[in-house]
Amino acid sequence: MTSAAERVERLRRATAAAGLDACLVTSDESIAYITGFRPLQLERLFAVVIRAGDGGAVVVPRLDEGQLDGAPEALPPVTYEAASDGIPELVSTLDGARHVGVEEYHLVFGRAQALAQRGLELQPAGSVVMGLRTRKDEREIEAVRQACALVETALSRMFDELQPGAVERVVNAGVESWLREQGATDAHPLILFGPDAANPHAEPGPRELAAGDVVCADLSACLDGYWGDLTRCATVASPSDWARSAWEVVRDAQAAAIAACRPGTAGRDVDLAQRRIVEARDDLGDCLHGAGHAIGLAIHEPPFLVPRTDTPLEEGMIFTIEPGLYRAGVGGIRLEDDVVVRVGEPEILSSLPLDLIEIPT
Amino acid sequence: MTSAAERVERLRRATAAAGLDACLVTSDESIAYITGFRPLQLERLFAVVIRAGDGGAVVVPRLDEGQLDGAPEALPPVTYEAASDGIPELVSTLDGARHVGVEEYHLVFGRAQALAQRGLELQPAGSVVMGLRTRKDEREIEAVRQACALVETALSRMFDELQPGAVERVVNAGVESWLREQGATDAHPLILFGPDAANPHAEPGPRELAAGDVVCADLSACLDGYWGDLTRCATVASPSDWARSAWEVVRDAQAAAIAACRPGTAGRDVDLAQRRIVEARDDLGDCLHGAGHAIGLAIHEPPFLVPRTDTPLEEGMIFTIEPGLYRAGVGGIRLEDDVVVRVGEPEILSSLPLDLIEIPT
Repeated sequence: MTSAAERVERLRRATAAAGLDACLVTSDESIAYITGFRPLQLERLFAVVIRAGDGGAVVVPRLDEGQLDGAPEALPPVTYEAASDGIPELVSTLDGARHVGVEEYHLVFGRAQALAQRGLELQPAGSVVMGLRTRKDEREIEAVRQACALVETALSRMFDELQPGAVERVVNAGVESWLREQGATDAHPLILFGPDAANPHAEPGPRELAAGDVVCADLSACLDGYWGDLTRCATVASPSDWARSAWEVVRDAQAAAIAACRPGTAGRDVDLAQRRIVEARDDLGDCLHGAGHAIGLAIHEPPFLVPRTDTPLEEGMIFTIEPGLYRAGVGGIRLEDDVVVRVGEPEILSSLPLDLIEIPT
Repeated sequence: MTSAAERVERLRRATAAAGLDACLVTSDESIAYITGFRPLQLERLFAVVIRAGDGGAVVVPRLDEGQLDGAPEALPPVTYEAASDGIPELVSTLDGARHVGVEEYHLVFGRAQALAQRGLELQPAGSVVMGLRTRKDEREIEAVRQACALVETALSRMFDELQPGAVERVVNAGVESWLREQGATDAHPLILFGPDAANPHAEPGPRELAAGDVVCADLSACLDGYWGDLTRCATVASPSDWARSAWEVVRDAQAAAIAACRPGTAGRDVDLAQRRIVEARDDLGDCLHGAGHAIGLAIHEPPFLVPRTDTPLEEGMIFTIEPGLYRAGVGGIRLEDDVVVRVGEPEILSSLPLDLIEIPT
């Protein structure tokens, strides 16, 4: 993995190359990438300032100074007290920089206004920062592989133990607890039963697993800073015709989208590879989302594999590939793996079979 | 609790009173307040549009339409497909409104720019939306009380079971799992041992509870949409002189800040009530944060009880009151309760004793 000091220098060069006087990094994951420090951001401002020429700083509430021990030497901490909102200290570290790049999908309007009122000209520079993060090196790929391995084990354990009568909310709580006990610093299980699974973002609730239900189990976990995110499905006893057919379509769609993960392919074309197959079977349900998203320090990061993305894939990018079919009132089927774009064949970072599991009654 | 329809009308009147043509609500909690629907926001735009005259909408990705069943009739859903970023659909629901209020600490710079490029003049209106949310009605207060009751039980169970040798990360995972099994839809345990507790935002790790450790246990949980947030402390066997003294100072500081929670008192003066007492004992450690923050649909919401807040307290506001003392390399002591501002005495929503608990060896 590139060292923090190298990353600071790479961002400094990218900032200069983009014609910016400085770059302001505010998202948790970008701060973690640059400094090794993942902030607990609440209402307080956290920022890494990198000036194009030289210098920079990590601006944090004094409350959080204790987390900065491992930050790179090139970025001395600048702390502010509870009496400040951090903006004066931030402006002071910018040291006269006027054209300042920001992460436009993280920095909030209120802070952007406060900086503009102090004479800064803010420019979207999320792509400058993501330009460093988007191609993963081999140690980062290994970190995602380890996170996937943890999620695979969690999925296998969960399906082994799952029985009719199990309560959706309790199953999710148990999986989250197990993942955290294994060292995950964050985890988002989304295990949905029967009709709940027709809504990909439903909140797990009091539903008990019943005969005829499908189970759509989407598990993600963050291990050593990197995420893994996998989805597998099951049915209680043997699958209905719908569940079997939907699973086959989604399996084929996933294979097609994975095969499309080649350097130079536009993001939208990876989506199209799955969409074409899923939308052809609208008799089975709806195609509610794109093929997937990049994954790494953030669980969802750009590029997004959706129809509006013309960004070409590059070697070292990692994507979730997760087509699904959803039928209101019945259920949902989704299959998800994490895939590295390689010069030759794409590499799948997990080895868990895609099988539609049958839960004994 | 006011109905969703009433809340829509109240926000409509507040929007008009602020001289705005429309208000754009984007934060999870404000969307939940207005619609009853708490979105799972990832990279996709969610927004409630309220026009000052009449009309409005809930703009959501089609992926999330399934969560909108209970939304108020005055706000018909407007969905957008994966091919859109939602901005055209949002602008269309604004229907010519030009002066548009936004939640300036939620809306990101990139979306603000996209809206400005379409001719909208955005104005900070977070205080307009919070003007509705900040004074809680009796049913909301009851909801926070119920969340506090759940957290109290979790704290009592955890301290009853805690033994030397327990692993910090495992203890946190177990408490989170238990809270979720009881119906919490979100939970943030932050139980820190010994020197880890000197850093209020440390990440729970592999440390085993050992003789001489303090335990600083900050637990929050969201139940039926509302948060409760309490902190209690313990020592392994009898407390050191430092732990006993720090606990006494923090207890006194908390009592002083709670007593200051009266309608009309400025937020900064509630902070001053605790700060004066804590800072007088800098021989025991550092005063790293303010007195607390408002709590309700969000775990941290304004007003914040810090030196820069001159907002006066109002009846029905609920605050955490949570002074602390932190000594690097040794530990931290914090005591936190949730307090309703009433016309007479402030009301504490929990009944768990503040005692410095002794964990048997």
